[in-house]
Amino acid sequence: MNQNATPSSLDTLDTPCLLLDETRMMRNIGRLNALMAGHGVQLRPHLKTPKSIDVARRLMSSPQGPAAVSTLQEAEQFAAAGVTDLLYAVGVSPAKLDRVLALRQRGVDLTVVVDSLEAARAVAQRAREAGDAIPALIEIDCDGHRAGVQPGNTAQLLAIARVLHEDGACLRGVMTHAGESYGCDSVDAIADMAEQERLAAVTCAEAIRQAGLPCPVVSVGSTPTAHFARKLDGVTEVRAGVYVFFDLVMAGLGVCSVDDIAASVLTTVIGHQPDKGWILVDAGWMAMSRDRGTAKQRVDQLYGLVCDARGTVYPDLLLAETNQEQGIIKVRPGSGAALPELPLGAKLRIVPNHACATCAQHDAYEVVRPDSSEVLAHWERFRGW
Amino acid sequence: MNQNATPSSLDTLDTPCLLLDETRMMRNIGRLNALMAGHGVQLRPHLKTPKSIDVARRLMSSPQGPAAVSTLQEAEQFAAAGVTDLLYAVGVSPAKLDRVLALRQRGVDLTVVVDSLEAARAVAQRAREAGDAIPALIEIDCDGHRAGVQPGNTAQLLAIARVLHEDGACLRGVMTHAGESYGCDSVDAIADMAEQERLAAVTCAEAIRQAGLPCPVVSVGSTPTAHFARKLDGVTEVRAGVYVFFDLVMAGLGVCSVDDIAASVLTTVIGHQPDKGWILVDAGWMAMSRDRGTAKQRVDQLYGLVCDARGTVYPDLLLAETNQEQGIIKVRPGSGAALPELPLGAKLRIVPNHACATCAQHDAYEVVRPDSSEVLAHWERFRGW
Repeated sequence: MNQNATPSSLDTLDTPCLLLDETRMMRNIGRLNALMAGHGVQLRPHLKTPKSIDVARRLMSSPQGPAAVSTLQEAEQFAAAGVTDLLYAVGVSPAKLDRVLALRQRGVDLTVVVDSLEAARAVAQRAREAGDAIPALIEIDCDGHRAGVQPGNTAQLLAIARVLHEDGACLRGVMTHAGESYGCDSVDAIADMAEQERLAAVTCAEAIRQAGLPCPVVSVGSTPTAHFARKLDGVTEVRAGVYVFFDLVMAGLGVCSVDDIAASVLTTVIGHQPDKGWILVDAGWMAMSRDRGTAKQRVDQLYGLVCDARGTVYPDLLLAETNQEQGIIKVRPGSGAALPELPLGAKLRIVPNHACATCAQHDAYEVVRPDSSEVLAHWERFRGW
Repeated sequence: MNQNATPSSLDTLDTPCLLLDETRMMRNIGRLNALMAGHGVQLRPHLKTPKSIDVARRLMSSPQGPAAVSTLQEAEQFAAAGVTDLLYAVGVSPAKLDRVLALRQRGVDLTVVVDSLEAARAVAQRAREAGDAIPALIEIDCDGHRAGVQPGNTAQLLAIARVLHEDGACLRGVMTHAGESYGCDSVDAIADMAEQERLAAVTCAEAIRQAGLPCPVVSVGSTPTAHFARKLDGVTEVRAGVYVFFDLVMAGLGVCSVDDIAASVLTTVIGHQPDKGWILVDAGWMAMSRDRGTAKQRVDQLYGLVCDARGTVYPDLLLAETNQEQGIIKVRPGSGAALPELPLGAKLRIVPNHACATCAQHDAYEVVRPDSSEVLAHWERFRGW
C-alpha cells in the first residue's frame, strides 16, 4: 500500500516485507531443470508457492506452461496471464466444476483430480452436460499422507477409470504426491520414498492400461523426491513447488543448504530487553506465518533464522517467539553465542521455516541480489480462492 | 475474486471462505461494552483482529474512535474511513515516524508507543523537526511477556518520560498488555493477572506524576483481563481485540463459550479415506492459518472444531491435519465418537483456534445470522503493513 512501486534500495522499504533473492531463485530453478533433463522427464512446477506471474514465467518451460495449481483462483490468474496447460492438483468438489468448465471454454487445458467413484461420476456428469470431456487424473495414495486410491485397490482404481473414460470425461492418467517425504531423516530415505512414489504411480498406470484403458500421464512429485529420485522410469511428469525458494524445512531435510533459500522477511529492530537477552523486531507471526515446520526436525529453527540486512546468516540467532506484529529474537538455546549489538532501527532478514506459508502473508516480492542493497523489482502476489 | 459481491445464500459461496455471525459478534461487543460501562472506563477496541471498516464501526463507541491498531497500514485505512483517535500500540521504529507524522498532519490524533530512551529520543527529535509534538505512551512490561520498561525501574521510566516531555514530543501516559493472561489456567488466575496489569500501569503513572510530569492516559488490556478485572481504579482506558469474534483459545481459557465464537471457515468435503476414518475438506492451513493456540491448553482442538453448515458443533470432530489447501477431519482421539456420513460436496464450518490469525488469511467476511442460510453482506478486510 505504502510501498513505492519501484523502490531502489533496501533502506527505503517499509518493514516487514518479503525479499526475494533472484540469483538464488534462478539457481534453484536451474538445478531442478537440469535434474529433470537428466531423467528426460517434463517438470510441471507447482505455482502455489510463488502465486506470482513474474516468478511463474521464470519457472515454467514455456509461457503456456505446464504448471500445477492448488486453487481455482491460481488457475484463473495464471490463465489470464496466458498459461494454458494447468493441473488443478487438489481433489475437485462438484461445485467447483463450473469454474473449471469456464476456464476450459476459454481455451485452458485444465485437468482435475479425483480419487473416488463419487467424484468421478460428478466430473463425468458435468462433462456430459457441458459437452466438454473434462480431463482427470486419478490420485493415488502412495504414502498414506492424505487423499488418493490405495495403490493395492485395483478394483476401485479401475472402476473410477472406467467411469471417467466411458461416461463423458477424459481419463488422462494418474498422479501421486509423496507428502511423507517431508518427514524423511536422510537423503537415502528421500530417495527410497521417491521410488515408492514412482512405483505406486507406475503400477497403477500399468493396471489401467492392462484393462484396456488409456493412461497417458503418470505424474509424481514433491520437492524432496524430485531432487533425489534415483530413476523415473515410466513417469511422464514431475511436480514440485517449494524448490523455487526453498526454506529451513528443506535445508533441515538436506534438500538444499541455507544459502540456497531465496525468500526472507526484512524486519526492523523496534526494541530490546537486555536483561532477558531479547531483541524485538517488527516481524511477528503476521509477517512470518505460524508455520513451525522445523519443530519436528533435528535442528529446530523456531520461527526463523536471523541474517543481517545483506543476508549473511547469524548461525545461532533465531526469531524465537512471535506476537501478531512483534517478534522476539534470542540466541539459540545452548549455543553460547553472543547477542549482537543492534541499535533501534537496524534491519535484519529472517529466513522462514516454510516458504509457501511465509510468502502467503505478503502481497509482493521485493526482488534483490546477493551483496547488494539495490531493489530490482516489485513483483505482485495474489491470494484467495 | 470470484465471489459474488452480494451473495444471498451459503450454498452459493465458493469455499473456503470466512463466515461472520453478526448476532454473536454484536453480543460479544455488547458484553464488553457493558463491563466497561460498569467500571466507568473507556474501551479502546483493537482493530488488528477485524481489519475491516464495517466491523470497526460496530466496535467503536463513535465513528471517530477511539481504537488501537497494530500497523500503520491499519492506521491509514481506518483514518481514511474517518477514525481520528488512534493508538499505534506496537513500539515505533524511527523510520516509521514519517508515516506517523503524515497521518497526524491529516488531523488524526495518532499516539505512538516507546519503551526505551533511544526510541523516546528518536520520537522527540522527529517531533521537534516537524513542529508536531507527537504524543507517546511509555510501554510497561507488566508480565515479562514482550516489550516494555520493567515496572520497578523507575529511573528508566522517568528518564524516558522526561525526554518525551521536555524534548519536543508529548508525554501522554503509560500502557501495558498482559499477554501472559493467555496462559492462565482459571478465571481467578486471569483476574489476578488483570490486577497485576492494572497495578503495574497505575504505579508507573503515579511515579511519573510524582516527578511532576503529566500522565493523563493509563491504558491496559488484553481480552482475558478486560473481561475478568475485579477493579480498574486509576485506569483510563482498556484495550481488547479478539473478543469481537472470540475463538477456541478464548473458549479454552473460559473467557467465552464455543457458542460465542462469531468467526468460522466454510469448507466443502472433497474426499474420504474410509479405512482411516478421514474426511478431506478444502480448508487447509491457507484457510485456517497454522495457529495451534489450543495445543498448550487442557483441550487441544487441533486445527479447529467442526460444525455443520448451519454452525451446530460436532463436539468431537476436529480438523486434525492441514496441507496448504486440504484439511483432514478426524474424530477426537479417545472420544469414541462416530464419524458422520458426509457426502462429497457437503459443507461444514470450522471454528478456529485464533480468530486474528484465521481471519488474516481471508479478504472478506461473509456475514450470516444463526440458523439461517442467508448471507447478509460481504465485508472486505485489508492486510499488509
